[in-house]
Amino acid sequence: MENLGGRTLDWLDDAVVMVDQTRLPDSFHTIRIATVPDLVAAICRLSVRGAPAIGVAGGFGVVLAARNCGVGNPAFDDAVQMIRMARPTAVNLARMVDRVAAAASRGSDAVLEEALAVRDEELAASEMMGIHGAELVSELSDSRSSYRVLTICNTGGLASVERGTALAVVQTLHESAALEETIVLETRPLLQGARLTTWELQRMGAPHRLVVDGAGPYLISRGMVDAVLVGADRIAANGDTANKVGTFSLALASRHAGVPFIVVAPESTIDMATANGEDIEIEYRDGQEVVSFRGATSAPKNTEAINPAFDLTPVGLITALVTDKRIVRFDQGKSLNPI
Amino acid sequence: MENLGGRTLDWLDDAVVMVDQTRLPDSFHTIRIATVPDLVAAICRLSVRGAPAIGVAGGFGVVLAARNCGVGNPAFDDAVQMIRMARPTAVNLARMVDRVAAAASRGSDAVLEEALAVRDEELAASEMMGIHGAELVSELSDSRSSYRVLTICNTGGLASVERGTALAVVQTLHESAALEETIVLETRPLLQGARLTTWELQRMGAPHRLVVDGAGPYLISRGMVDAVLVGADRIAANGDTANKVGTFSLALASRHAGVPFIVVAPESTIDMATANGEDIEIEYRDGQEVVSFRGATSAPKNTEAINPAFDLTPVGLITALVTDKRIVRFDQGKSLNPI
Repeated sequence: MENLGGRTLDWLDDAVVMVDQTRLPDSFHTIRIATVPDLVAAICRLSVRGAPAIGVAGGFGVVLAARNCGVGNPAFDDAVQMIRMARPTAVNLARMVDRVAAAASRGSDAVLEEALAVRDEELAASEMMGIHGAELVSELSDSRSSYRVLTICNTGGLASVERGTALAVVQTLHESAALEETIVLETRPLLQGARLTTWELQRMGAPHRLVVDGAGPYLISRGMVDAVLVGADRIAANGDTANKVGTFSLALASRHAGVPFIVVAPESTIDMATANGEDIEIEYRDGQEVVSFRGATSAPKNTEAINPAFDLTPVGLITALVTDKRIVRFDQGKSLNPI
Repeated sequence: MENLGGRTLDWLDDAVVMVDQTRLPDSFHTIRIATVPDLVAAICRLSVRGAPAIGVAGGFGVVLAARNCGVGNPAFDDAVQMIRMARPTAVNLARMVDRVAAAASRGSDAVLEEALAVRDEELAASEMMGIHGAELVSELSDSRSSYRVLTICNTGGLASVERGTALAVVQTLHESAALEETIVLETRPLLQGARLTTWELQRMGAPHRLVVDGAGPYLISRGMVDAVLVGADRIAANGDTANKVGTFSLALASRHAGVPFIVVAPESTIDMATANGEDIEIEYRDGQEVVSFRGATSAPKNTEAINPAFDLTPVGLITALVTDKRIVRFDQGKSLNPI
């Protein structure tokens, strides 16, 4: 099996190598992908997931297209289009594919260079989010020297290339011996917290315990959490934040208990064209995800379900937004001016 | 298979007959129990669950003991003790067993009479909770003629003998054509909402949809719910309420959205000896429940979990308590004086 170090995916010996996330946490396998159709299939079946990771994978896909089809050929343009559309709702994928494909006019080597630049920028962004977030946590809970944090979904290296967003903050705290515990919400229906976040924390040797989603608000109210750290799917211009369903309940509980509620996301997640959360369209997914649990059926046949994948947290409940470039203290009346 | 009508358990032709809840929702089976050891086994493996249902089953168990051992024999006392201890934390079980056993001094017929009285009181209490609750819902949302309610866990006939507590209100609304929809939280980790409540609603032909627990607060915030109806495990003298974990997040979201949050429980759930919620001990159950469901594993091996079975909702977030005897409007400054 190929060695990716701590990374989720990378460009190794003329191919894309990635962790096959569909097999986690049961087994850890990497797959080697040398053709565009194989890459598109891997993206479609969620072997790679998480906006930043998909973007980087897409960039590497353009490199494969350039090598296999030759830049300038119509086959190259078709391949690029195919990668772009592998997950139509992942804005980041199209954006990164377009960026790398634009380098094709300067030749095949320039394409690889651009794809590696996309990867390196992701790595640097994750590192900066970790540093900014850890600073903020210690500033907000300055009576402690190590912190108990709570998080939802998977926002770690598996969702980016390495380290991630909210989980990058956890990792930075852990590396500076300032992490007492991470409470991980299992994150129904797809259980990214239970399957992926626990796996990442285990791998980094960071202390953690798993809870059902309904227990998060209660544990926050019991004084068991110093800060709640969550990612973001999309942030409106006023700071309202769409994130994995269940996030809103954590924000309510944090406000009720006086616990800092911190959103950690790259600048690219901020959508200044969307005025506020009311304008963010929330994706509703197939109800089948709700009536089953990793293949085991939980409800009677023909049970209908409502399955919002995300929810909306109003900026008034958010203490601060941490990005790769800045910390925006909503609790101090700061707002999201473009930088 | 025996016909229980709409009931979960009953005394039929000299034996206890009950729905085997361990087989729901996959298949509907009743079991006939004619000996004390069989009854104890059924209680232990959760064929019957829910405090009121266990209490009634225990009462019938004393009838079996009286018939099989003869009242006044040491074997009768031993059998009674065995039933009493089948689930040591279920206060209701011991209370009802003691009550029925006390009738033994008046002979075997008096024992059956007392057990049937326990059952009939449960039935009457459920009916009154349904009526009181439906009245309150229509009073609180008087601009509508049919209501969209949201509930957690299983509080229906399966948890009592028939109708139940919070779900009795849903059933009463449905019977008077005033139910537009019930949103059911799946209720991790044991999924009583997904497995049992949807089954009961399907059986009564009441419209419903299932959601993951984390989606409840979001749907409340989106104006999709007219009232939240929940049961209670224990209610302190000041009104603080312990109920299935996840309940607290629904109360927070209800307050945030201005939606009525209503607790429905029999008077026997009120514990005037406990001053407030801080004094209620919350049961923590085995973490194994969190890392799996029906044999499907969700987390890496050796993942530790925290598994509070209940959470605590402060009275300040509760609009009203509905019991079999009264409606207590906490939102109007009313308090829980003993009646």
